[in-house]
Amino acid sequence: MSVHPLAPLDSAEFEKARAAVVKLHGGDTRLFFRCIYLREPVKPQLAPFLELEHAGKLTEETPRPPRQAIVQYDVIEHSSKTSKYTTSIITLDTGEEVTRETAHQKQQTSYSPEEFAVFQDACVESQMFKDAMAEFALPPNFAITIDPWPYGGPDDDEDVPRLMQGLVFARDTSSGNVESNHYAYPVPIIPVMDFFTREIIRIDRLATGGADDGIEPAARTEQPKPLFQSAAGAEYAPELLERPLRTDLKPINITQPEGASFKVYPDNLVEWQKWRFRLGFTPREGAVLHDLCYEDRPILYRISYSELTVPYGDPRPPFQRKQAFDLGDGGFGRVANNLELGCDCLGAIHYFDALLADPSGKPNLAKSVVCLHEQDNGIGWKHTNFRTNRAVVTRLRELVVQCVVTLANYEYVFAYKLDTAGGITVETRATGIMSVVAIDEGKTSEYGAVVAPGVLAQNHQHIFAVRIDPAIDSYAGDGTRIAVEESVPVPSHPKTNPYGNFYAVQKRTVEKACWIDAEPKLNRTIRLENSTKKNPVSGRPVSYKLTPPTSQTLLAAEDSPHARRAKFAQHHVWVTGYRDDELWAAGEFTNQSTDEVGGVYDMVAREDWFIGQEGAETNEKGGTRSSPVIWSVFGLTHNPRVEDWPVMPVEIHHLNIRPADFFTSNPALDVPAAKDKSSVIVACCGGEEKKRSDVPDASVQQDAVAHRQGPGPDLGAAEAGFTVQQS
Amino acid sequence: MSVHPLAPLDSAEFEKARAAVVKLHGGDTRLFFRCIYLREPVKPQLAPFLELEHAGKLTEETPRPPRQAIVQYDVIEHSSKTSKYTTSIITLDTGEEVTRETAHQKQQTSYSPEEFAVFQDACVESQMFKDAMAEFALPPNFAITIDPWPYGGPDDDEDVPRLMQGLVFARDTSSGNVESNHYAYPVPIIPVMDFFTREIIRIDRLATGGADDGIEPAARTEQPKPLFQSAAGAEYAPELLERPLRTDLKPINITQPEGASFKVYPDNLVEWQKWRFRLGFTPREGAVLHDLCYEDRPILYRISYSELTVPYGDPRPPFQRKQAFDLGDGGFGRVANNLELGCDCLGAIHYFDALLADPSGKPNLAKSVVCLHEQDNGIGWKHTNFRTNRAVVTRLRELVVQCVVTLANYEYVFAYKLDTAGGITVETRATGIMSVVAIDEGKTSEYGAVVAPGVLAQNHQHIFAVRIDPAIDSYAGDGTRIAVEESVPVPSHPKTNPYGNFYAVQKRTVEKACWIDAEPKLNRTIRLENSTKKNPVSGRPVSYKLTPPTSQTLLAAEDSPHARRAKFAQHHVWVTGYRDDELWAAGEFTNQSTDEVGGVYDMVAREDWFIGQEGAETNEKGGTRSSPVIWSVFGLTHNPRVEDWPVMPVEIHHLNIRPADFFTSNPALDVPAAKDKSSVIVACCGGEEKKRSDVPDASVQQDAVAHRQGPGPDLGAAEAGFTVQQS
Repeated sequence: MSVHPLAPLDSAEFEKARAAVVKLHGGDTRLFFRCIYLREPVKPQLAPFLELEHAGKLTEETPRPPRQAIVQYDVIEHSSKTSKYTTSIITLDTGEEVTRETAHQKQQTSYSPEEFAVFQDACVESQMFKDAMAEFALPPNFAITIDPWPYGGPDDDEDVPRLMQGLVFARDTSSGNVESNHYAYPVPIIPVMDFFTREIIRIDRLATGGADDGIEPAARTEQPKPLFQSAAGAEYAPELLERPLRTDLKPINITQPEGASFKVYPDNLVEWQKWRFRLGFTPREGAVLHDLCYEDRPILYRISYSELTVPYGDPRPPFQRKQAFDLGDGGFGRVANNLELGCDCLGAIHYFDALLADPSGKPNLAKSVVCLHEQDNGIGWKHTNFRTNRAVVTRLRELVVQCVVTLANYEYVFAYKLDTAGGITVETRATGIMSVVAIDEGKTSEYGAVVAPGVLAQNHQHIFAVRIDPAIDSYAGDGTRIAVEESVPVPSHPKTNPYGNFYAVQKRTVEKACWIDAEPKLNRTIRLENSTKKNPVSGRPVSYKLTPPTSQTLLAAEDSPHARRAKFAQHHVWVTGYRDDELWAAGEFTNQSTDEVGGVYDMVAREDWFIGQEGAETNEKGGTRSSPVIWSVFGLTHNPRVEDWPVMPVEIHHLNIRPADFFTSNPALDVPAAKDKSSVIVACCGGEEKKRSDVPDASVQQDAVAHRQGPGPDLGAAEAGFTVQQS
Repeated sequence: MSVHPLAPLDSAEFEKARAAVVKLHGGDTRLFFRCIYLREPVKPQLAPFLELEHAGKLTEETPRPPRQAIVQYDVIEHSSKTSKYTTSIITLDTGEEVTRETAHQKQQTSYSPEEFAVFQDACVESQMFKDAMAEFALPPNFAITIDPWPYGGPDDDEDVPRLMQGLVFARDTSSGNVESNHYAYPVPIIPVMDFFTREIIRIDRLATGGADDGIEPAARTEQPKPLFQSAAGAEYAPELLERPLRTDLKPINITQPEGASFKVYPDNLVEWQKWRFRLGFTPREGAVLHDLCYEDRPILYRISYSELTVPYGDPRPPFQRKQAFDLGDGGFGRVANNLELGCDCLGAIHYFDALLADPSGKPNLAKSVVCLHEQDNGIGWKHTNFRTNRAVVTRLRELVVQCVVTLANYEYVFAYKLDTAGGITVETRATGIMSVVAIDEGKTSEYGAVVAPGVLAQNHQHIFAVRIDPAIDSYAGDGTRIAVEESVPVPSHPKTNPYGNFYAVQKRTVEKACWIDAEPKLNRTIRLENSTKKNPVSGRPVSYKLTPPTSQTLLAAEDSPHARRAKFAQHHVWVTGYRDDELWAAGEFTNQSTDEVGGVYDMVAREDWFIGQEGAETNEKGGTRSSPVIWSVFGLTHNPRVEDWPVMPVEIHHLNIRPADFFTSNPALDVPAAKDKSSVIVACCGGEEKKRSDVPDASVQQDAVAHRQGPGPDLGAAEAGFTVQQS
């Protein structure tokens, strides 16, 4: 059987793609490879294939979309001292190049790990940097450590070379342990490097004052300014911790004696509890779910993280450039952690590996970058019949697809969670070490919180975009319709609302591309409907609903570089017309962008329409009749607390996508009632534990019609005594 | 050692309280007992005691508040054919009655389980009811089952007797199984009973039409109207389910081989991971946490559910009276489920029992009404040093105090969760069977969703109030100050915000009693601060912060009975001045209320103040200088989906209360790194599982300074090569 169109590239395919590109450019051209990964088939090819697949009608003769790869690389031109960022799509069978796109000089792609490494080397060798450092006197045994950072949006629209900046820290080497945490010791300079020349071209000096000291950088002192006079360490590695570790947290073991309930196939197909999907993984997005179905009914064609911007609210230059785009400037897939058994999740776990390109275009195996496991999430549904005291209680089981990414100091834990009740939850956990800067000891600032002596954690936001490409009960997604539902107060009215308790549930169809803000006062929800299929019970369109989280959108002023670069972050929901390969909420090129180009704002501007205008082909703005794609924007305004230091406890965020008249009853109704036999009773004051078998058998009691011992009446007798009416 | 002032009444004390009341009223008076439970000592007595207790300074000589009981009962007066609802506070030592309050005729207390039982009996014997039922023809083998319901707010202000209404259903008895679900078969009448005479005084006829049929009840037909012609069952009991149970959901066992990490003492003191609190339980509130401390630093004096109103949005009479107050009309404690091992929670569990009064005032043991257990909630904090690839990852452990309550058809799961990072989460899960009414088969309605043939689930809301009595780092709570913090956009300004990226974090102190709405656009949070203690690191007041959930408030029109009865439900946060015994957001008497009396609206109206006016004693509205109490109001607008039938999958809601500069670093920093040894690797396609010991030892790899195999640069060399500046 041929490989599935959504199966990731295997290493032979990976090598083929590389070889094709090398051949196309001739042996003499110097190429710097960035990414090689599966080019997903376009929807018009893939959707009919999926339909046949789910109908069990695939044969070896079924036409398949050609296997293709996306290859992203720089063409280094010695003569012009430039490098041209290039994207080729290669058909693997033939080695043919289907398309080639070369970025404009202003379009900077994301940094690769190798570029990050280059930066530190260039910095420590730079005389300019050494001179800047000579302004400061460090305590003995402190070494310099530099965290490379995206340069951010340039201050003017002039052509700028590819740049990178660095946050400079010192590390206390006296313990001899390389895990000693350097973030406790920020140095108030930022070196800036030109990537092509690999030279430090500028050292930005940072303000270190407090609330009343203005926004200018600190003045240069005559003598080297001593740093970290009363600084404290900020160790988190257990062997360096000053306080002892807790010894009284007893283990919770999670075991699955009969194994996992899910099944994973070699081509990344996953089946679990009537759900099925294919796991994708891209260098920019990390884990992606394709073709998400329940009982072979499609729900989502594709769901993925699209962008994450982290703007900082400190107005002191150059912090107007402190704004990361963690997908566009970095890439979740490329910084995904190698997860470890028993640490990142518990139970019976499957790990997925991925292939990532090294600079020569060879595949590197990234081990265990995605994990898959089940978990119990408490009571799933319960009802106690108060007449008999019989309780039926089931557990909510979840399947979790999880990635953890490290962006220098910071971590995110991403999970797609599917549950036994047909729900889809996108979970984001923010953790890791906050990005901090120096503040004169003893001062405080309106720009952030002092989390340790001399250490200011600046106020900032994290704003995510998740792209949701719906396929509600139709593979092609062309029956998909988006509607906005609101619950609206209605004034009292003698005829229609005489007692004022009525409220109206209003629904309007989204007719063309637009943005929508969350409106909790109206309980605004977004319905992803199939316009042609009705639920046989309710008569309403089959649908899933998305409740847009109400989190704060971007705070930066509308005319600010931060806002211009991240228009997507200014509204909670964007509805755009589907285009193949259109995946990026803030556009493809965020690195050093001055404006969001090709992001959701531009997509909306072309005025694609979803309903009506059947005859029209296109409009003058480039729009056309399309199927709708939803972008959900949410995040957190993070005004740091001392508790977030040195490593921040997770802040958890959920995006809920739930069936709404998609099924004909509770999909979890057939989940067996819970009767876990491994649970035990803990007695008071350290008495002996009791197992289920030691206590009166609850299951027998449940199955009998027991009279309620505690509170609650028994109405069984009265019920039985009533005369039945015959029809 | 004497019993702790917060220890629940033991059965001897319970009997003493009863005996005292019986004696006070003389042997001839007929008494109907409703509740007997601990009268918590007033704060001026208890707070100093707690301070001594935590300081380890308690002796047998320490003065203790007297042990007292609250006894609630009706005095039945045969002569006047009335019963007087009475509350006595009894000092147990002496049997002395400290206070006695007799309710006004209009003030109806909650229904007792015994009253619920009386209703069904009265109904089925009533000729009026039988006549009404004769209008309908039921299929063979259907028996009548009636769910007692609170009467709701009367339509006029006239004196009304104590009333109850019933929702009438039929039950298919053909299976012979009493668990067959009657909610699938609603009968469109509502009988109303006078409680004193125990007579059915009225039968309300219900509208059964669709969207265009107006709000009038269905016309009487000549012949008995056949019901349930094409109705389907709505079974949820496993043995009655039409579809087979899932067989592929493999067990997840949660075991604690070394036992639980918590300790429970006989007087309901609980200690866990630096937390400690005392568990209380009242008939109205269910579980209550008292004296919640972390490392002996107080945080909350008391936290409890205060009220829950469930208004229905169907304007057709008599549904303007379909509005439950589930604490004031019922009482969470009295309808708390008897929880079962391995069903309601997993792992090592401690169960708490409670004593509840029967009508004669004798204690009934309510078994296992509260459970206590630990659970794992995923990654707690993580950081990967990208230079060394060393990851330190810890788990988030939670202690869960859980109750499940059944209110006729519906269930709520309530949990107070404490975590290893100092967080407090109030979790609410809504489940159970929706309250449904009849609709003519084939019709649909704007008032709800058709969830089965002939069954309309009406649109409704659930609005909760949680009362939070803070004691931030001070037992008496008199240092507590409430502030509102907002993150606010700031326009660009050449001097102070040249690039427009600055946003202001603004905080204002709440000076007097008021309400506050959630405002996600401003990221509004409520700070519970200690005004006299500063965090030594940040210089800010030690505090916890509460993020008010943004859920929709009450939709009913302002002049509606629903809105007048539930003023508390119209704003997200109420800040009121503390008074002993003032616990009810909608007032003590919600049953048959026409207006919220003595609830948070009235508390705010007396204009207590928290700051300033040091000299003043009281104002003309009854206000005085007070310490602040917070009431958090949240809920869900529930426009039913077919998936909510027949038993609804849990809808989960979280209220987050988090430390904010309360500690001097992440409180979970000393949680040992995770290295669970029971987890296993699941291979592709059913290959063999691997244990941690079968794979290269991750812990060894972690502890070494390994070069990153996958993505990410190694910058160790460059760092080491830099010249250290000597200070």
